[in-house]
Amino acid sequence: MGEATPQRVVTRTEGPTVVLLGAGRVATHLAPALVRAGVRIVQVWSRTEAAARCIAEPLGIPYTADLEEVAADADIYIACVADGALPCVAEKVVTMAGKRPLYLHTAGSIGMELWQQCGAERYGILYPLQTFSKERGVDMRRVSLFVEASDEEALECTEALAHALSDKVFRADSKRRARLHIAAVFACNFANAMYGAAHRLLDEEGIPFEVLMPLIDETAAKVHVLAPREAQTGPAVRGDKGVMQGHMEALAHDEELREIYALISNYIEKTRL
Amino acid sequence: MGEATPQRVVTRTEGPTVVLLGAGRVATHLAPALVRAGVRIVQVWSRTEAAARCIAEPLGIPYTADLEEVAADADIYIACVADGALPCVAEKVVTMAGKRPLYLHTAGSIGMELWQQCGAERYGILYPLQTFSKERGVDMRRVSLFVEASDEEALECTEALAHALSDKVFRADSKRRARLHIAAVFACNFANAMYGAAHRLLDEEGIPFEVLMPLIDETAAKVHVLAPREAQTGPAVRGDKGVMQGHMEALAHDEELREIYALISNYIEKTRL
Repeated sequence: MGEATPQRVVTRTEGPTVVLLGAGRVATHLAPALVRAGVRIVQVWSRTEAAARCIAEPLGIPYTADLEEVAADADIYIACVADGALPCVAEKVVTMAGKRPLYLHTAGSIGMELWQQCGAERYGILYPLQTFSKERGVDMRRVSLFVEASDEEALECTEALAHALSDKVFRADSKRRARLHIAAVFACNFANAMYGAAHRLLDEEGIPFEVLMPLIDETAAKVHVLAPREAQTGPAVRGDKGVMQGHMEALAHDEELREIYALISNYIEKTRL
Repeated sequence: MGEATPQRVVTRTEGPTVVLLGAGRVATHLAPALVRAGVRIVQVWSRTEAAARCIAEPLGIPYTADLEEVAADADIYIACVADGALPCVAEKVVTMAGKRPLYLHTAGSIGMELWQQCGAERYGILYPLQTFSKERGVDMRRVSLFVEASDEEALECTEALAHALSDKVFRADSKRRARLHIAAVFACNFANAMYGAAHRLLDEEGIPFEVLMPLIDETAAKVHVLAPREAQTGPAVRGDKGVMQGHMEALAHDEELREIYALISNYIEKTRL
């Protein structure tokens, strides 16, 4: 049978084995993306067993909630844990698995020196610039991934892994990554907060948030072709004091949104020149 | 020939004639959308002749820069002029064209009583909730249009015009429209200002703004399926003081963005509960 269908005999080039540490938002999206990319995840660890199972079971991967049980012989360890938990997790895992593996983390705001301090020799960062919610799938191929590593060989391994996941891989040192992270907070987290403010204002009048969708979509689509400065519209960029004054009065009931309105309008007015 | 091809004889039901007042961003998008919808624009007026020509000429419509020359016999006058210019334009046009026509304006923040004060009897508002830039086409069928009018008959005329343009037509009185306008300032103008802040931060490091596109797109796409509050990610909603402190320090060179960072982060932290 094997001889009759030689075309079905796949010579599998075994790639590196990966242990995924963490079961939060990033891990939830990274695990299936890695599997789709043909990367062999040999284990998922999370402090919470239910969270680890939630990611690992559908993918048929072993999991554990005990750091002592983490496989010590994997080629790559990817830590996607909360920033505060990373030092502790890193130290335990390096102590167990030693100097040979490549250690990566996905947090944009923590330097890779952390791994060196734990005794690692090959380490780096795989920073996905995306907003991950557990409820919603993300096409990892369209996510910008920023990589950095301890040396050229580790960087090549990290880049190979990144390219297997995404079409948008960039090198970025910690200074650039820090800047990217802050920029992402503005472009994503703060933009979403503005959607949230709009939602709150419409809710009070019983107007469905959906009426804003074409506007939100167009606002995002516009900056694909125009710089945000050129795309800016509204009373502040027009210097329309009358409309702004009216809006400030209409926000008299909501001191928080009033303050935001004043500050951002002022920022737009100042930067339009 | 007419007898041989009877199927090509179109019995044209002549709809209302429209004069478009203004040649700014709204008029630039409204004029071709009206023409596509089969509405007969008989004239375009703008204070600036070049601007009027720019809109009217490609559509084969007469234009003028002289308010005295505006056609007095149209059925509908649509004013898409700057808020400050509207009272003056409205008064002159109503004085010329009298009580018979339907007078509409597209400004969300000006009440329709303006037309009554000028002596009009049939008037209303056709408020497009969208961000219009001259450089970029907009599919008017996907733009939410909010209508209001002086009486039921005028409302029906306004709605008929709106339905000819868009699939999303809603009635909204001035109170709801005012609220929509403020919500739009947050969801569009302020979201774009956040893109602008990110652009500024990346520019300083020589990082192309394009790396943020997948993030910006996903942030907008997410609120189609999750409320903004549920979609919120980032250090503020996680209460991650360490990351926020680091970002505040990294923004030491930019007092404006520092202030925005602190205020919006605080807003996100407060509203996550």
